[in-house]
Amino acid sequence: MPSLSVYKSSLDYSYAPGFFPAMECLQHAPQRVRRVLIHTEAVHTPAGEKLTALAEEKGKRVEIADRVLQKVSGKENCYAAAVFTKEEMPLRPDRPHIVLHHPSDSGNVGTILRAGAGFEYEDMAVIRPCVDVFDPKTVRASMGSLFQMRVRLFESMEDYQAAYPEHTLYLFMLRGARPLQEVLAGTVAEPYALVFGNEGSGLPDSFAERGYPVRIESSDRIDSLNLSVASAIGCYAFRFRK
Amino acid sequence: MPSLSVYKSSLDYSYAPGFFPAMECLQHAPQRVRRVLIHTEAVHTPAGEKLTALAEEKGKRVEIADRVLQKVSGKENCYAAAVFTKEEMPLRPDRPHIVLHHPSDSGNVGTILRAGAGFEYEDMAVIRPCVDVFDPKTVRASMGSLFQMRVRLFESMEDYQAAYPEHTLYLFMLRGARPLQEVLAGTVAEPYALVFGNEGSGLPDSFAERGYPVRIESSDRIDSLNLSVASAIGCYAFRFRK
Repeated sequence: MPSLSVYKSSLDYSYAPGFFPAMECLQHAPQRVRRVLIHTEAVHTPAGEKLTALAEEKGKRVEIADRVLQKVSGKENCYAAAVFTKEEMPLRPDRPHIVLHHPSDSGNVGTILRAGAGFEYEDMAVIRPCVDVFDPKTVRASMGSLFQMRVRLFESMEDYQAAYPEHTLYLFMLRGARPLQEVLAGTVAEPYALVFGNEGSGLPDSFAERGYPVRIESSDRIDSLNLSVASAIGCYAFRFRK
Repeated sequence: MPSLSVYKSSLDYSYAPGFFPAMECLQHAPQRVRRVLIHTEAVHTPAGEKLTALAEEKGKRVEIADRVLQKVSGKENCYAAAVFTKEEMPLRPDRPHIVLHHPSDSGNVGTILRAGAGFEYEDMAVIRPCVDVFDPKTVRASMGSLFQMRVRLFESMEDYQAAYPEHTLYLFMLRGARPLQEVLAGTVAEPYALVFGNEGSGLPDSFAERGYPVRIESSDRIDSLNLSVASAIGCYAFRFRK
């Protein structure tokens, strides 16, 4: 097996850093796990023993790899990781989707994966250009929820819509949009996709024509909501609509 | 005026880094601004001129301070900042409160300030031990919303409750709690406080007796929601309850 490298987006594998994300990876996507890394100091801890047992159950090799773990995690301490194959998956055409257009922060993408999984979403489309969705930082922020979601990348919104023409788009934007409360008081078309724009620039105004523009009502005391907060509220509100 | 230091929590001042947060500080808390810092390269940009004009209107000195800005921002580029006096404020006893118990991440506190301000909350109590709520990282994550909120620190939950005995507590916890949807379908007591626990450990189980435990319903696919996401959903849901 070739030696492991510091993560870069050109690799065909990535790292799920931390015990919890590594366990999630083994549990929900064992076919993607290449091996499991553990730090000398963690081998005989309860978390280390639990991870090793699960890896053995799934037939995966566990390696002591203090140096690689140090390199993978950068500044933060990291005592375990799963090495996994990066893999896109087709989204289910009959399920609601989350669509992120040009997200630029890996922490946000991870946080949205986690919230999405929490509110029963299983499918996420990400429109390029975007941050690397398989970056270990994304996996960490997702707390391993990445391995419970189907994630697929697209070159453009047109490509996404061509692949999933059945989905009605609800576009979260600031200008000219109907309040979320009002939209949810009416009928929501199914299957639907919740579409969120870039952290700084939001969605292009022209996207309004592609579906139903929606605005999370907030006071004029703030310019906008943080992307992961807005996405989580969107997922929550659609999930629990009456 | 003494020379400016790299931020540390023992100082009685802090920095609002970035044009937007610095403008917010000048706009909403001019009495707390000591001076405004700007980078040579930003002086003649539109953002630089707007900031300088606002500082002059508020009678504040603007200094070119390339080195200090570099020190304040760490790795990220930072072309402007407001130097402000750290100050706690009494909370309004008749308004809803956000209460953070032992928060440990400055980004989360900032994101919650921003979402809170967006949903008409103006008062936040923070229970020690906690991250430094005046850290420039908090200010940055809040996008300057810190200056639109009254923030007060307490040594314990008992101290907070002694200061604001009128508030009914809604405690966001995982165990033994009623679903948020169900709680909101009933009557919400006013004034109320939404209480959120630490990122890793949540609220102590014993807190359940202090008020109404509430749980944001999420699937068993995730362990818990991210703190800033949970807090923002709590604020949103209480704000827009029927």
